[in-house]
Amino acid sequence: MSNTSPVTVLGLGDMGRALAAAFLAEERATTVWNRTAAKADELISLGAVRADSVAEAVTGSPLVVVCLLDYGVVRETLEPVAGQLRGRTVVNLTNGTPSQAAEMAAWVTGHGGDYLDGGIMAVPTTVATPEAFILYSGEQRIFDTYRGVLGELGSARYLGDDIGLASLYDLALLSGMHLMFDGFHHAVAMATSQEGGSAFGFTELLVPWLTNMARLLPAFAAEVDADLTTAAEPRLTQGLDVQVSGLANIMDAARDAGVSTTPLESSMAALEALLAHGHKVWSAPASVRQLRTAP
Amino acid sequence: MSNTSPVTVLGLGDMGRALAAAFLAEERATTVWNRTAAKADELISLGAVRADSVAEAVTGSPLVVVCLLDYGVVRETLEPVAGQLRGRTVVNLTNGTPSQAAEMAAWVTGHGGDYLDGGIMAVPTTVATPEAFILYSGEQRIFDTYRGVLGELGSARYLGDDIGLASLYDLALLSGMHLMFDGFHHAVAMATSQEGGSAFGFTELLVPWLTNMARLLPAFAAEVDADLTTAAEPRLTQGLDVQVSGLANIMDAARDAGVSTTPLESSMAALEALLAHGHKVWSAPASVRQLRTAP
Ligand SMILES: NC(=O)c1ccc[n+]([C@@H]2O[C@H](COP(=O)([O-])OP(=O)(O)OC[C@H]3O[C@@H](n4cnc5c(N)ncnc54)[C@H](OP(=O)(O)O)[C@@H]3O)[C@@H](O)[C@H]2O)c1
Ligand SMILES: NC(=O)c1ccc[n+]([C@@H]2O[C@H](COP(=O)([O-])OP(=O)(O)OC[C@H]3O[C@@H](n4cnc5c(N)ncnc54)[C@H](OP(=O)(O)O)[C@@H]3O)[C@@H](O)[C@H]2O)c1
Repeated sequence: MSNTSPVTVLGLGDMGRALAAAFLAEERATTVWNRTAAKADELISLGAVRADSVAEAVTGSPLVVVCLLDYGVVRETLEPVAGQLRGRTVVNLTNGTPSQAAEMAAWVTGHGGDYLDGGIMAVPTTVATPEAFILYSGEQRIFDTYRGVLGELGSARYLGDDIGLASLYDLALLSGMHLMFDGFHHAVAMATSQEGGSAFGFTELLVPWLTNMARLLPAFAAEVDADLTTAAEPRLTQGLDVQVSGLANIMDAARDAGVSTTPLESSMAALEALLAHGHKVWSAPASVRQLRTAP
Repeated sequence: MSNTSPVTVLGLGDMGRALAAAFLAEERATTVWNRTAAKADELISLGAVRADSVAEAVTGSPLVVVCLLDYGVVRETLEPVAGQLRGRTVVNLTNGTPSQAAEMAAWVTGHGGDYLDGGIMAVPTTVATPEAFILYSGEQRIFDTYRGVLGELGSARYLGDDIGLASLYDLALLSGMHLMFDGFHHAVAMATSQEGGSAFGFTELLVPWLTNMARLLPAFAAEVDADLTTAAEPRLTQGLDVQVSGLANIMDAARDAGVSTTPLESSMAALEALLAHGHKVWSAPASVRQLRTAP
C-alpha cells in the first residue's frame, strides 16, 4: 500500500483528530467528517479534505477508519450510508465489546463491506509515537491489505480472525489501566494529605515503583497459565496474614488522613474470601480464579 | 560507616532473610534472630551469627533492623528487652501506619534508644538491586549515621524528621500497587476467558501498556497540585461520557466472559458521582478531590 491510497476518518473527537493528523503527517490523502464540523478546521489547514456528509466521507476512500463515542453512535452514523459500503473496508477503532464487534462485523459484511475491529492502546498525544499500539482482529486478508496504512497510527498488532479478540484484549488492558489510575488517585490523595505534600513530587517515587512492580507480572502470569493447564502449585506467594495486615494498614492510614477507603474495599473482601476458603497464602492464580464467577 | 560496623536483623521471614543476605553480601557482620529458628539456617551458612534470644540479638549490634509481620509483633518482641535499647538504634522496616510509627518511636526513645521508621519499596528478590528503594523518616542525625549501612539494602531515601512520613508514603505506594495488581488479575481473567488465551502472552501487551500509562501520571499529578494551590482548571481531561461508556463496556465484556465486575464497581460509582455533581469531564484533580472525604 503506498501512501497515495486515501483514507477517511469518521469522528474527530480527541482521538479521531489524532488519528487523522497521523495520516496527514505521512502525507496520506485524508478525508474527514465529524458531526460538529468545526472540529475539522485545524485538520483542513493541515491538508485534510472536508466531507460535508457521511455519504461524501464514506465514498471518498476505500478505507474508512471510524472513531466515535460508542458502537451505538457508529451504527447510527453508518446506517444511512449502508448502501455505499459495498467494496469498502470499515476499520472500527471505537471502544466496544466483543459482542458489539461481532454484531457490527455482521452488519457491515451484510452490506457487502469488509470489516476489521480494533482497539487503540494509546492516548491522543501518543498516537503515532513508538509507544502506541493498536490491536486488530478480523480476516487476515483485510488486515494484510491495510497493515501499512494502519501502521501509521502506531504499531499494528493483529490478534487473529476471531472478530471479538481486539476488543476483549483492549478492554482487558483498559481494566488494568483503570485500576492503576484508581490506585494513582488514591495514592496521591494519601500522599498529599500532609501539609506541603506534592503530588508531582510523589510521582517521582510512584512511577518507578509501579514500573518495577509491573515487571513482576509476567512471572505471576506464567503461574496463572500453569494453574489452568497443569494445576501446578504456585511458588510466587506471600502470606495472607502479611497481605491482610498491609492492606488494613493502608486503609487505617487513609482513614486517619481523611481519604476514602472505598477503592480498596473489594481488594480487602477478596483477601478475606481467600482466608475464609482456608488459603494461607496469596497467589496470582488464586486471585484470578476468584474472579472467574461463571461455573 | 565502614562495613565492619555490625548489624542485627530481627525477623527472618521472606523479607528479613533478603535484608540479612544483603548485609552478608557486603561482608557486614550480621546477627540474626527469628521466632522459628530454622529460617536462620541458610544465613548462618552464609556467615551470619545466630542469636538464640532477642536479648542476644539486640545486644549483638548497635544497629537493630526489624522486619516482622506487624507493629504488634514488633512491640511484643522488643518489650522484654526494653532495658537493653539504651544507646542502640532501632530501624523498623515492618509495614505499619504513621500513628503506629509515632507510637513505636516514642516507646523506643522512652527507653533511651534511637528510632528510624522505614518502608521497603522492593520485594525480597529485588532487595539490594538498583530498583529497590527504602523510605526513611526520623531524626536526620540518626539517618546520617547509618545511611551507608542502610544503603546496602537499596537506595536509601530520607523523607524528613516527621516520623510518620515513611509509612505514609510507603502505604500510599502500596495502595497504588494493590490496585494495579487488582487490575492485572482482572485483566488476566478477561484475557484468558477465551479458549487458548495465555496470561503470559497477554502480559507482553499489558506490561508495556501499564508502563506507558504510568508515564502520564506526573502530568496528572501536576494538575492535582495546581488544583490544591491555585484552583486552576485542569487541561488534561476526557469526556465523562467516553469514560463511562468505556468502563461500562469493560464490565459488560467481563460479565459475558464470566468474570466478576466487583473490582471495577467503585470506579464506576466514582464516575457516576462526578456525573451526578454536574461534571462533564473527568480529570485527575476531580478524582483525587472526590477521595478526600474529610471536611
Ligand atoms: N481519548 C483517548 O485517550 C482514547 C484512547 C483510546 C480509545 N479511545 C476511544 O476512541 C473513541 C473516541 O474517543 P475520544 O476521546 O475521541 O472522545 P471525544 O473527544 O468525546 O469524541 C467523541 C466523538 O464521538 C462523536 N459523537 C458523539 N455522539 C455522537 C452522535 N450522537 N452522533 C455523531 N457523532 C457523535 C463526537 O462528535 P461531536 O464532536 O460532534 O460531539 C466525537 O467525534 C471512544 O470510543 C474512546 O473510548 C479514546
Ligand atoms: N515480602 C514482601 O514483598 C515485602 C515487601 C515490603 C515490605 N514487607 C513487609 O515486611 C514485613 C515482613 O514481611 P515478610 O514478607 O517477611 O513476611 P513473612 O515471610 O510472613 O514473615 C513474617 C515474620 O514475622 C514473624 N512473626 C509473625 N508473628 C510473630 C510473632 N507473634 N512473634 C514473633 N515473630 C512473628 C515471622 O516469624 P516466624 O518465621 O517464626 O513465623 C516472620 O519472621 C511485613 O511487615 C511486610 O509487610 C514485605
